[in-house]
Amino acid sequence: MKKIKVSIIGATGYSGKELIKILLKHPHVELRHLVSASYVGKNINEIFPDFLHQLDKELIELDIPMLARDSDLVFTALPHTVSMKIVPGLFTNKELKVIDISADFRLTNPSDYSDWYQTELSEESKALLQKAVYGLPELHIEEIKNALLVANPGCYPTSAILGVAPLLSNQLVSTEGIIVDAKSGTSGAGRKLSLGLHFTECNESFKAYKCVKHNHIPEIEQELSLVYYGNKQKGRKDSIKISFTPHLLPINRGILSTCYLRLKDSFDDKEIFKVYEEFYHEAPFVRIFTPPALPEIRFVTETNYCDIGFAVDDRTGIIKVISVIDNLTKGASGQAVQNMNIMFGLTQSDGLI
Amino acid sequence: MKKIKVSIIGATGYSGKELIKILLKHPHVELRHLVSASYVGKNINEIFPDFLHQLDKELIELDIPMLARDSDLVFTALPHTVSMKIVPGLFTNKELKVIDISADFRLTNPSDYSDWYQTELSEESKALLQKAVYGLPELHIEEIKNALLVANPGCYPTSAILGVAPLLSNQLVSTEGIIVDAKSGTSGAGRKLSLGLHFTECNESFKAYKCVKHNHIPEIEQELSLVYYGNKQKGRKDSIKISFTPHLLPINRGILSTCYLRLKDSFDDKEIFKVYEEFYHEAPFVRIFTPPALPEIRFVTETNYCDIGFAVDDRTGIIKVISVIDNLTKGASGQAVQNMNIMFGLTQSDGLI
Amino acid sequence: MKKIKVSIIGATGYSGKELIKILLKHPHVELRHLVSASYVGKNINEIFPDFLHQLDKELIELDIPMLARDSDLVFTALPHTVSMKIVPGLFTNKELKVIDISADFRLTNPSDYSDWYQTELSEESKALLQKAVYGLPELHIEEIKNALLVANPGCYPTSAILGVAPLLSNQLVSTEGIIVDAKSGTSGAGRKLSLGLHFTECNESFKAYKCVKHNHIPEIEQELSLVYYGNKQKGRKDSIKISFTPHLLPINRGILSTCYLRLKDSFDDKEIFKVYEEFYHEAPFVRIFTPPALPEIRFVTETNYCDIGFAVDDRTGIIKVISVIDNLTKGASGQAVQNMNIMFGLTQSDGLI
Amino acid sequence: MKKIKVSIIGATGYSGKELIKILLKHPHVELRHLVSASYVGKNINEIFPDFLHQLDKELIELDIPMLARDSDLVFTALPHTVSMKIVPGLFTNKELKVIDISADFRLTNPSDYSDWYQTELSEESKALLQKAVYGLPELHIEEIKNALLVANPGCYPTSAILGVAPLLSNQLVSTEGIIVDAKSGTSGAGRKLSLGLHFTECNESFKAYKCVKHNHIPEIEQELSLVYYGNKQKGRKDSIKISFTPHLLPINRGILSTCYLRLKDSFDDKEIFKVYEEFYHEAPFVRIFTPPALPEIRFVTETNYCDIGFAVDDRTGIIKVISVIDNLTKGASGQAVQNMNIMFGLTQSDGLI
Repeated sequence: MKKIKVSIIGATGYSGKELIKILLKHPHVELRHLVSASYVGKNINEIFPDFLHQLDKELIELDIPMLARDSDLVFTALPHTVSMKIVPGLFTNKELKVIDISADFRLTNPSDYSDWYQTELSEESKALLQKAVYGLPELHIEEIKNALLVANPGCYPTSAILGVAPLLSNQLVSTEGIIVDAKSGTSGAGRKLSLGLHFTECNESFKAYKCVKHNHIPEIEQELSLVYYGNKQKGRKDSIKISFTPHLLPINRGILSTCYLRLKDSFDDKEIFKVYEEFYHEAPFVRIFTPPALPEIRFVTETNYCDIGFAVDDRTGIIKVISVIDNLTKGASGQAVQNMNIMFGLTQSDGLI
Repeated sequence: MKKIKVSIIGATGYSGKELIKILLKHPHVELRHLVSASYVGKNINEIFPDFLHQLDKELIELDIPMLARDSDLVFTALPHTVSMKIVPGLFTNKELKVIDISADFRLTNPSDYSDWYQTELSEESKALLQKAVYGLPELHIEEIKNALLVANPGCYPTSAILGVAPLLSNQLVSTEGIIVDAKSGTSGAGRKLSLGLHFTECNESFKAYKCVKHNHIPEIEQELSLVYYGNKQKGRKDSIKISFTPHLLPINRGILSTCYLRLKDSFDDKEIFKVYEEFYHEAPFVRIFTPPALPEIRFVTETNYCDIGFAVDDRTGIIKVISVIDNLTKGASGQAVQNMNIMFGLTQSDGLI
Repeated sequence: MKKIKVSIIGATGYSGKELIKILLKHPHVELRHLVSASYVGKNINEIFPDFLHQLDKELIELDIPMLARDSDLVFTALPHTVSMKIVPGLFTNKELKVIDISADFRLTNPSDYSDWYQTELSEESKALLQKAVYGLPELHIEEIKNALLVANPGCYPTSAILGVAPLLSNQLVSTEGIIVDAKSGTSGAGRKLSLGLHFTECNESFKAYKCVKHNHIPEIEQELSLVYYGNKQKGRKDSIKISFTPHLLPINRGILSTCYLRLKDSFDDKEIFKVYEEFYHEAPFVRIFTPPALPEIRFVTETNYCDIGFAVDDRTGIIKVISVIDNLTKGASGQAVQNMNIMFGLTQSDGLI
Repeated sequence: MKKIKVSIIGATGYSGKELIKILLKHPHVELRHLVSASYVGKNINEIFPDFLHQLDKELIELDIPMLARDSDLVFTALPHTVSMKIVPGLFTNKELKVIDISADFRLTNPSDYSDWYQTELSEESKALLQKAVYGLPELHIEEIKNALLVANPGCYPTSAILGVAPLLSNQLVSTEGIIVDAKSGTSGAGRKLSLGLHFTECNESFKAYKCVKHNHIPEIEQELSLVYYGNKQKGRKDSIKISFTPHLLPINRGILSTCYLRLKDSFDDKEIFKVYEEFYHEAPFVRIFTPPALPEIRFVTETNYCDIGFAVDDRTGIIKVISVIDNLTKGASGQAVQNMNIMFGLTQSDGLI
């Protein structure tokens, strides 16, 4: 089998590093160019000694023609607002496929982007939105198969959407008052210098942050509305709104989202379990826990699984859903590779299990 | 000033240790007997070398007449269901005061105890419930002043009740759909052997547990109903019900509760802030954060403070309240000492700031 | 290629779990029986939900005839003194190969075992010592190729021996005054209940333990003497003695050993580096760092690498060697699989990179 | 009793914060000015919300005349090379006393400073060295009593010197081959931005750093030589040299030093214990552990104690000494307050126990 030639733009952030780590073990991938604005000329080994004896490659400047010539697929692992400046240029070459790990192509409606990211999407990028597919395979696998540009989901949205989609899809819960209380490890904040991310500042502590305006909210609402109402054109007025609170956990990797929804009727654990199992029966990376067992972050660390458990609280009519992922794997680079596998006709789990 | 003679039953659990640590620095306390069923005959220094050069005292067996003779106050820092076997015996001596850190005397209605703790309260203990005062000074300071038996609140309840009481007391929020998503450090689980509390099992992880039936729920509901409806006799049917989910944080000490309530009307940050400041203007250990600042666990570690912050989410009509305490201080032993100070006419913060 | 049929005795400790995790991804292995004294009848998934959707197998009682019939190789991942009771029984079947992860077959001289483990080795096990090969591939690969019984090295010894062997083998350092100051994560202590391994007891702390009598010492001295003096018969009188101090790190996985040796002469970094590179030029899992770069535990976490760095201190004539491994991988189960690969004629790194 | 008026230059680093925390509880101190170059005009509460309700003070620019006028004592908690620019100016006012927490005035011989800190000490600072006293109370209490300028010891030196001084003072050990393997929590590295101190970069890891040239070495050697040879004039040629390796622990606070020394003769535990007890019988903050008990970092966290344990290894003739301190308390600000107490005729432990 011919190997897929892959390059990475933004190879020295945590998502870039994780991509390399996964792709090195992938049986059908050949790693080509690694682009890094910050470390041009250095060997990837100097930045990440983890790769000693495994990968010997110099980090290069962005050179789109060369990337296009030498690659079948480019991963862009860049901060939001940076991606939109680079990704359109990659489409001058028709054959190239792109998986973008930033937020820039996730929101169907460009005004959501400007509302939540306080920046206007560039005109070229707005044009690309037509091509962009939201890369959550459990919801959009058919579109991903033929996509040229996949917008890889955010980490919090992956865990929240997978956690509650089956309940909404089956109309078992109210669309009102949905709460997602999410907790993430520190790698979710990236590798940029920040006092608040120093060990001494977040170890032995815990905090909520961006309490009402986290920019992952519109992405979650877009997808949940789609699941519930069934079409993209549904205006914002009728769409689902969630209360979302992110917190910072003193661990390296992992997200646990505790989701609270109001059941429309009374259901027992078996009925709910069946709903989840059916919704995900073709999804190789979703595992449903049988109550009262509940998932823990450690069960999914360094894997591409999303583990989901739930508990029905008869006293209050609330169902609690616990959804855990590794933010760097299923929440970023693992999911990106899963999308690559789908786009190139491979088995979804190649290189991931 | 004459010193208060204090003894501790259950001196070698985490609450017992913390009590000793605080009392050693208290200007008006003389530490008398330390009772420990597990370590009779050992010096407290052998169990906790932290106390070397500070305290040289042998752990003794339970001897109620001796305790009664030599003490003005006894702290019982025992597991629930153990306290109820020991505390009634302490009241054969009229002058003795008792602060019980277990759950056994917190619930006004004995049937709540049997429902949630799966054990019947002993008859002698039921009789004592009349005397018992729920020791949350911010709500019950007048009753505590004259109490002989104080039931020291649970750690989760302290953080949850203090976090939302001002909103309920002022009728600003609906009593429906209250959610408390709470996260606690490992010391909250005590010092009993348990595989799930081993470092390797909880480090670099995070999980929810006892998802719908945690026995701190009735205590929170009892106090919130009292705050809202204003009298203890209110039957369970009309009382407030909350959805409560505890989680285990990989840190030693601290609780953060994220509380979600539905605002009855639209309020701005200043109005809410004023409500909190007024509610707690005489409470030396509650600090209200000015939005958008939010409390973090590390701000209260090893202190008796409860720090509270909030955020109004106009999009959803939800107010989020973040309340943090140290589970061993304000959540247990610090609050117990605060209660002692009140019972003996001292300044609330003596030995605690 | 025909798969190797593998069974595990002691499947539910940390080494057993890690073995399963590695073997599930190994291209040439078929996992047969999982034996666990503690959890007979349970599915491995109930004990370790990490394996959900990956492995569906019931834990069974020890049944040697069945194991022998169905397996080409048995891993015994048992505590020391337990292995010696079980391993001899496995050799009633001549074709079976065994890799023992305990300490019971590591010491050539049975009196060392009784001196350091305070137990006499059983007669049957003494007889087996003749067959047993010390499974450190970097030193004994030829013997391992033909071994029926491999005694898999301890975690501390692996890191210490690999760290200093090149210096001793080349006679560059004195045999006097060798110091190994070693630090290990908590998984090294196993899964047995212990208060000292509770999160609250070891988090945010650090300690030395078993300060002069740790039972990994004889194993290190045996191998270092062999490296230096070149034959096993060398009596204890002339053998190398080391000062070894283990410490407990508040992390899950990983060992870092800081070794201090006295250089016989003055050498520069390049000379030393060359000595190490030559010594390990055929070892796929040893990586030498170029000064002043030094290895860190995180570079080897969840890998089978041993990373080694060094610094020559001209002021004192001391060379410091830093050697890091993952205690569960190169320090236990990864190395066991490396040994399996060698015993069955596979590439050393199959299933491990 | 009249309160000591105290100001702090460098109030917003970790040492500055710790000083404030300690001084707020000190019965004989009045906190005056807080100087911070980075946060002029902000309230200390905005930087450290821990101090809400406890301290309400604006951070100011450096204004030496004002400081001199309003203070009896100034603490300078500044990085090395910054202190030397500021401290001389403080001595234009004769009555003012200064405790400097940097390294700038610790080394008697200015050429040691230029050798190890790669900077020349300013001429004004060289002149001040005559006045400067090395502020380790256990060795220099008499000089500290009358000092105008105290050079507060480094964190690593405090733990190492206190750990081995009794053995050297009593000539029980060789001066050759002394090894100090030290491990420190992350707060020791200060609050300056650094990728290597990010949570994700040091959590779940461990490393050695500055392996042969850490600038705490000359300070340790100066004091140990003084202890052994008994006078400051002893030239460098005959002085004690140590091999020192610092490591970074994934914890916030604390240092554990494992020291290896060669015993000149054979001693049993009781003899050694007696030597330590006698050496420190007047030192309120040194606690000696009876073998085989050993100190752990957690026993001293947030205290001013230095806990020392030891083990004699008869096989090798090596004595291992384990010495633990909290790097921010006994290793910095606690010791500074201890020095203040001595300089002002108070009880050494005022405000510290």
